Parts: sequence; C-alpha cells; structure tokens
Amino acid sequence: MLGGMQDYALRVPRLIDHAAREHGRREIVSYWADGRETRTDWAGIARDAKKLAQLLETLGCQPGDRIATLAMNHSRHLVAWYGAIGMGGVIHTINPRLFDEQLVYIANHAEDRVLFYDKQFQPIIDRLRGQWTSIEHYIAFDDEGPDGFQARINAFDDDYAWVEGDERAPCMLCYTSGTTGNPKGVLYEHRSTMIHAMCEVQPAVFNLSATAVALPVVPMFHAASWGLPFAAALSGTKMVYAQTNDAAVLCRLMNQEKVTHSAGVPTVWLSMFQHIDATGQRPEHLKQVTIGGSAAPRAMIERIMGMGIEVKHLWGMTETSPIGTAGAPPPDWEAMTIDEKLDRMCKQGQIPFGIELRVIDDEGVEQPRDGVSSGRLQVRGPWVVKRYFKADADAIDAEGWFDTGDVAVIHTDGTMQITDRAKDVIKSGGEWISSVELENAAVGCAGVAEACAIGVYHPKWDERPLLLVVRKEGSGVTSDEITAHLANHVAKWWLPDEILFVDSLPHTATGKLLKTALREQYRDYRLASAA
Amino acid sequence: MLGGMQDYALRVPRLIDHAAREHGRREIVSYWADGRETRTDWAGIARDAKKLAQLLETLGCQPGDRIATLAMNHSRHLVAWYGAIGMGGVIHTINPRLFDEQLVYIANHAEDRVLFYDKQFQPIIDRLRGQWTSIEHYIAFDDEGPDGFQARINAFDDDYAWVEGDERAPCMLCYTSGTTGNPKGVLYEHRSTMIHAMCEVQPAVFNLSATAVALPVVPMFHAASWGLPFAAALSGTKMVYAQTNDAAVLCRLMNQEKVTHSAGVPTVWLSMFQHIDATGQRPEHLKQVTIGGSAAPRAMIERIMGMGIEVKHLWGMTETSPIGTAGAPPPDWEAMTIDEKLDRMCKQGQIPFGIELRVIDDEGVEQPRDGVSSGRLQVRGPWVVKRYFKADADAIDAEGWFDTGDVAVIHTDGTMQITDRAKDVIKSGGEWISSVELENAAVGCAGVAEACAIGVYHPKWDERPLLLVVRKEGSGVTSDEITAHLANHVAKWWLPDEILFVDSLPHTATGKLLKTALREQYRDYRLASAA
Repeated sequence: MLGGMQDYALRVPRLIDHAAREHGRREIVSYWADGRETRTDWAGIARDAKKLAQLLETLGCQPGDRIATLAMNHSRHLVAWYGAIGMGGVIHTINPRLFDEQLVYIANHAEDRVLFYDKQFQPIIDRLRGQWTSIEHYIAFDDEGPDGFQARINAFDDDYAWVEGDERAPCMLCYTSGTTGNPKGVLYEHRSTMIHAMCEVQPAVFNLSATAVALPVVPMFHAASWGLPFAAALSGTKMVYAQTNDAAVLCRLMNQEKVTHSAGVPTVWLSMFQHIDATGQRPEHLKQVTIGGSAAPRAMIERIMGMGIEVKHLWGMTETSPIGTAGAPPPDWEAMTIDEKLDRMCKQGQIPFGIELRVIDDEGVEQPRDGVSSGRLQVRGPWVVKRYFKADADAIDAEGWFDTGDVAVIHTDGTMQITDRAKDVIKSGGEWISSVELENAAVGCAGVAEACAIGVYHPKWDERPLLLVVRKEGSGVTSDEITAHLANHVAKWWLPDEILFVDSLPHTATGKLLKTALREQYRDYRLASAA
Repeated sequence: MLGGMQDYALRVPRLIDHAAREHGRREIVSYWADGRETRTDWAGIARDAKKLAQLLETLGCQPGDRIATLAMNHSRHLVAWYGAIGMGGVIHTINPRLFDEQLVYIANHAEDRVLFYDKQFQPIIDRLRGQWTSIEHYIAFDDEGPDGFQARINAFDDDYAWVEGDERAPCMLCYTSGTTGNPKGVLYEHRSTMIHAMCEVQPAVFNLSATAVALPVVPMFHAASWGLPFAAALSGTKMVYAQTNDAAVLCRLMNQEKVTHSAGVPTVWLSMFQHIDATGQRPEHLKQVTIGGSAAPRAMIERIMGMGIEVKHLWGMTETSPIGTAGAPPPDWEAMTIDEKLDRMCKQGQIPFGIELRVIDDEGVEQPRDGVSSGRLQVRGPWVVKRYFKADADAIDAEGWFDTGDVAVIHTDGTMQITDRAKDVIKSGGEWISSVELENAAVGCAGVAEACAIGVYHPKWDERPLLLVVRKEGSGVTSDEITAHLANHVAKWWLPDEILFVDSLPHTATGKLLKTALREQYRDYRLASAA
C-alpha cells in the first residue's frame, strides 16, 4: 500500500524556481577582479540560467553531458550551475589551482564538452587546450564582447522549461585530488543534492534564511562551495560573491552589503585578522563564520568568538557533498566557560541528521564513543559517495560505509574529532601516534616555523616518529629544546626518536604537507634508536 | 545515467535512530493529568518504540495496518507514533473532541486494529466500543497495571530492527472534519513526512536545534502536531509535553524546563494572557511562539512580541502535513516600525521551499500577487495530499493543484493572507465580501460578544450580507451603532443589509462557527432591501 501524497521529484531546478518565485528580489552581488561590482537577484539568476540552458542545447549538449567551469565566485558562475543542471547536464567545477597534469586528466576523464572560464585563467586554457580532448567550446564568463558569456546567452529568452528526469540522475561532478593516484570524480545526484541542501539550512549547520546575507569565501570549485549555492536558493539568502580573496576587498564588501554569514578555509581568516590588525577595520555585521576544509586553530576560533560572532567548525569532504559534521552549540552551551566552549569548537562538531559516522580499529571493530578510542573514520548517508565516476567497483563496504581516510575519536557527547589522516598516523608497537598532534605541538615551540612528523621503520616498534623541522629565520632552536617543549604536550612514548632540521618542506597544490614524498625520501632512514 | 551517491530510503525510523544516537540524552518530559511528572529521553523513546513494535506484531498487526490513538500529549503517545511506524504500521491519531458520530465513522473507515488511549477518554471507549467494528485491542497509556501500556511493552526488549519498505508507503493517517459530509483521511507517507520534517526545522519555520526546548500545546491528534514530533527528533530538540492545556501548569512547566519554543492555536495564548494578568507569572525563557490553526489576532501578536518573543504565524491544513506558510521575518525586518511588523505578522506568512501557492478567480485564472486580487487558494508540493484515503479519485487537478477551500490574496512581497473560507464568502454583484473580515470588524464594536456574517439571497446582487450578533451581557448595542462602527473598517458596499440579534451562535466540535447550519436556517430569509 502506498500513501496519498503528491508525486514530487527532488530535482535541483526546484530550488532556483523557488528562489525566483519567493525571493526573486534578493540580490546576488558580484565583485569582479577588475574592481567592478554588478548586481542581479535570484529572479535574474533564474532568467539567465534558462537562457544558458538553451545555449547549451544549441551547442549540442544533451542531458547527462558534463559542462565544466574554471572560475572564481560570481553570479555568472552561479548561472552556469543552474543553467547546466536545468538542461539536464552535469556541472563540473574544476579547481584552477591544480597541477597541469591533473587539469588535463580531470577534463578528459569527465569528457567535458563546454568550458566556461574566468579570463584570469586564460593562460591555463592556452597551455592545455591542445591536451584537452573533449572540450568543444570555450566561453569566458567575464568577456563582455560578442563571444563572451552574457552576449552568448542573451541570444535566448527565458521561455524555457527545465528538463525533467530521474531524481537519482547526476547534476554535478567534483573531483577530489589526493596526494597519490589520479583524481577521483564524485557524481552528485539531484536527490542527494536536494536532501543535503534541506539539511544544511538548519540552525545547527548554516542557519540560513531570507534575513541572511552570505559571502562564501569558499570557492565554487571547492566541494560544491559546501552546497551554499543550493542552500541559499532554498532559503532566500542574499549572496555576495568576489572574484578575489583579498581581505581588504572582502571586509569592505561585508560591510557594504551587511554580510551576516561567511564561510571559508582557515587561511581566509588569518588574512582577515592581518587586515583587521593593519587597518582597524572589521566586518561589522557578521553573525556566523563557518570554517572548514582543514582544522581551525584554537586561537582563530577564540578571536572570532571574541568578536561576538558564532563559529561553526565544519568537517566534510568532496565525497560527502561535503557536510559531514558541524560544530553547533550543544544544549549546555550557555552554561559553559569560554574555555569549555573553545574545547568544544576546536573539535569537528556534531553529526547532523542524514549522516552516520563510526570509528573502527584495524580489525574493523566499531570503537566506543569515549573520546579516547581512535580509529579510522567511516561515514554513510544519502549525500555520501557510493561509487566514483567511471569506477568499476563501489567505494563502500557491504554495509554502506565509506572509509574517509581520516583517523578520529568520537566523544561521549557525540562530537567528532579528527586526529590524523590514516596514512599519516605513526604505528608504534600496535598503538597510534598522531602526526598532526605532534606537528601542532612542535610549531608551538619558539623558533619552529614548520614541522612534519612521519613514521620511519623501527625493528622493535614497527614505526617510530621522525620530526622534520624548518627553523624560523635566525633561530637556533635545538632538538633538545623542541623535545622538552613537546614533553609538555604529548605522551612520553609519542616523543620523536629524532629531530632533523631542514631548509624547507614539500607541499601539495592545495598547500598541504606532501608526506608521501617525505616518507619516500626517508624510507631507508635508520634511526639511532634502532641500532 | 544515474549518479554515484548512496541509496537511502527516506523512512521515518531514520529520525528516531538519529535522535537516539546523536541526541540520546535530550529529555522528553511529560506532565500527566494526575499531576505526576515523568522523564525519559530520545534514547528511551527509541527503546520503548522498539518494544511497542514487537507488541504490535504479537497482536497480529502487519505493515500497513492502522494503529489508533485517542490521547493527549505525552511521551508514551510519542512512543506509539515511532513504534507503530517502525513496525511498518500507520499511526492514526483521533481527535477526542469530535462528535460520537464522527469518532465511530473515522475508526471504522480507517479499520483501526488497536486503540491506545488516555484514561480520561474511557467514557468515549465505553460509549462507542460496540459501534467500532475493527478495533481488537484497547490499551490505556496511563494505566500502570499489568494491562496498561508500559507493562505490556515491557514484556519485550529493544532488540528489534525496524521494518523496511517503500518510502512512498504510508506512515500516518489524519482525518480532517469539515462542517459537511464525512471526515476525510489524509494518508501521509514516509517520504512526505521526511521532506516536511527536513524543511520545517529551518530558521524560517520552527527554527529547531539541540539547544531548543519545545512545549507543543498543539495536540498530537491535531494535524500531526504540526510535524513537531518528527522535526524534534531530526534536530535533537528537548520536548516537554502536558496532558492538560491549563495555563498555570503550562507556564510553570515552561519555566521549570526552560522552554524556548512553543506552538498552539490562538486560544492557548488567550488563556496564557489571563494567567499572566492574574498571577504576574510569565514564561521566562520563551524565544519563539508559533501560532496556527486559525488566524492570530493582531493584539495577541503584539502582546507576545512585546514580551521579546518572536512570533511565527503559521497557515496550513491537515492536507498539507500541515505546513503551508510561516511568518518568518522578511529581509527588511530590522528596519520596520512595530506597526509594519505587526501588519506583516498578522498575515499568514511566506511560502517555504517545497510549497507552491496560487490564487485563482472563479474562471480558474491565476491572480497577480498584488495584495488586492483575491480568489481561491490552491497549493501543491511534496507534502500536499494527492488522494484522500480510500477515495475513488484524486483531490487535485491535472496540474497537481489542491484547492484549499480558503480565499486569499498574495502580497507583492510573497506574503499570503487568508481572507475567508471559500464557502463562507459572500458573493455580491460578482464581487466577494469576506465574512471573516466583517465579523472581525464587528467584534471590535463595544457591546458585541460574537458575530457571524452570512450571505442571503438577494434578487439583484445574488447575495447580500446578513450579520448575526450576540450582545455582551448587559449591552444594548444597536444595529445603527454597529453599522456606524463597521463603516470605519470596511468598504461601504460590504456593510450588512441587516443586523439580527440572537442569544447564541452554533459551533463545530473544534469551536468554529457552524455557518452551514446558519445558512440553512436563514436560507429563506427575505431581506427588506430585496423587497
């Protein structure tokens, strides 16, 4: 027996239709790299998306085809999302900061047919055009000439009906680039995207409504911009976009547009702090700042909270659409001391409806939520990947669990805390040492600019930590001094067997330590303690 | 081509599993009619629901079977919802305030197999048991003996896996009783209920999170208690339930449990005002009050807002699960004067994602959103009825629109305003006169206790208004005085052709004016103006 309610496909164009109908006059502001500011609104985005859908059809695109973008945040990029999805296509956002090799691989693997791009990335196009095998059309978003984005779509009107289809059909493709192997594509569905959007507007996550004004610093090419372009349409949020991450510009825009919500990776806020310190200016209307992408330092959370702004610490990944956890205030928030609040907000947050998380040990046994038992973090839910694009096998186990590659503990109150990447954890005598915690403790020592902990072979303990340290300019900090400092912060058996001083450390395209290269370099390193 | 995300059925047991896992210690407090208070939590509700599911299976219940309740708000009623739904059943909440004839019809039409009830309704059971043809088991929620609810479910443990099934399968049945004809059943689905719950926790509707403490005065037998038992589990809201609507008890509970959110029909708040005026006590922690069921008077909204509490005006119906619109603050809220805010909040609110509303004239032509063009209000969306339970035909037109039976206008800012019930509107010379607006204006006249406007036959104008008035005790207010008062509030051509004074007016079981009976009574009434 089925129920008596209406048929309703969870398709993404419902969002832009709703935004245009109920929040049509809420603005979408764009700051362009050349300093211009333009304004449209949700009704305008919907109109242009319908024009774009027709352009894509005229170019021969079919439902299911991938339409790529290589662009920063602005209203035309938003039009491209809704237009490509609305004609049944799959919007594929490419990260322009990737290495050429990855850029070539990704576009060819996705079989992108059209590429919309920002002129600032013209050098990338010029360099790689010959290696991209499927892209037939290149259209610059910010080319105001007859071949540019706006002129091309203005050849069409907004008399267009969105393509209908299965709610499990794909709508978006995002690649995740690890430190090894080729990037892998996560193919989001209309349904998964809609459920994700409905859940992320809730107070415990983004807390969005028609009174919110959001400036997402998180790029639209980064994990679906955390779903904000969808959640904003659902809730009628006014959006402020910038083609730049310059803190002075962002701060001015925030005040000019009375921005209440922002979201970005930790480095964004470090730049903002420098701007505040240098100018005395500050964002005056911010109520909530969401930090994700990598763990936010305690001092950063403390400073933002000290400005009277609520901090939401987010954990997720491209494979989770990307919301995994969000640092919402717990029931006893009001009664907490500032230190307790900071302790709480330094962790990765609680598990919102839809997501299931568990921590397992090396034997696959689920670990208790005791704040101590660490293990591999696994996730499942309606907006979690099942199978990577074009993969031959599912990325999940028989019970639906996806292994995140993170090492974590879950606390008794349900708060999750990432302690390391699984491949970076140092396995010593059957116990795990967190490389991240060692590094964080080490950079707290005066004279240490950067540190990297890796496990190297030890005949008795299997692995023991080796700490690589870049000294600050002019510092003569010694191994003994660093070890003494570490002893105040980590267990004695975690202390590195040796500390080596190096001139620099290698990084990935996204600024993370390239530990694979370091492990390879020190693979045959023989610790004195192993003698 | 389908996407790459996980399979995930939108089934209601996901909610209680989430609440037990992530918000297991959040309390569910119950105040019982005998003055006792009991406490459990979301983990406890989940445990007892699993026990109950097994009891129902032992009693022979199958997936799809209807399990009825005749009860006020308390934790065991909540257990019955999740337990019955969890074993694949359909929870059918019966309104104990209905007339016997309706109670008999509803339970027999639903083919209820088990009835859980509060002892205070034992007289109803004793009276109707012989006429109920399908109910095999009667179990009292608040019977603490061996045949009572808790003893019966405690024969089972919580080692139970919820029944799985289609997400379009039914989970709940609510009857809507009009003033004519038999009540009609709306058969909610797992999917419709889940989408409704995900959308109603958003800031613009109930604004629920794990820091919220809700005391829903709206009964669990009234339109799924506005979905709060589902939305609360999704968001980890602490729930406070009372088997009584006594304002003194509710106010004490609100302060004792630090209640932040409440929801109920307008009369609830009238009682609360009387309690506040009489005792000087007031709810100290309330942040949001949601008013629905019927239109909230301006003075009520003003008084609650004056207490520093946010007011959400809700419109909906059993056929819409029931959220239709919610009076969320618009973008320019902060800049509004108090009068502008009140003007806004007196209307029925804005349209949340999922719902589509339109107003059509008698010819079916969609009317503009100009705040003036009134017509029949139609609705469609994922949580709107398609076909009543056991009906032979759909309740919607070919485009999916359900006719609400309300007359409304939509304002330029998208705010919807109910002006009348379609069957109560007075059609005079091809134009519509709102009976509700006439009545509201009339009760503002000194000496008028209650008023009812109905259309009676007129040879020239088709219908003209007749106003029936109950004078206040000791008042001698005259027709001329009332007409003079009305002339300040409505258009001249709306003024009643005649005013008749009556001793009392008939009401429905839920306290609404029984206009069908009055129209019947005055069917042959001959207006002097028609002579």
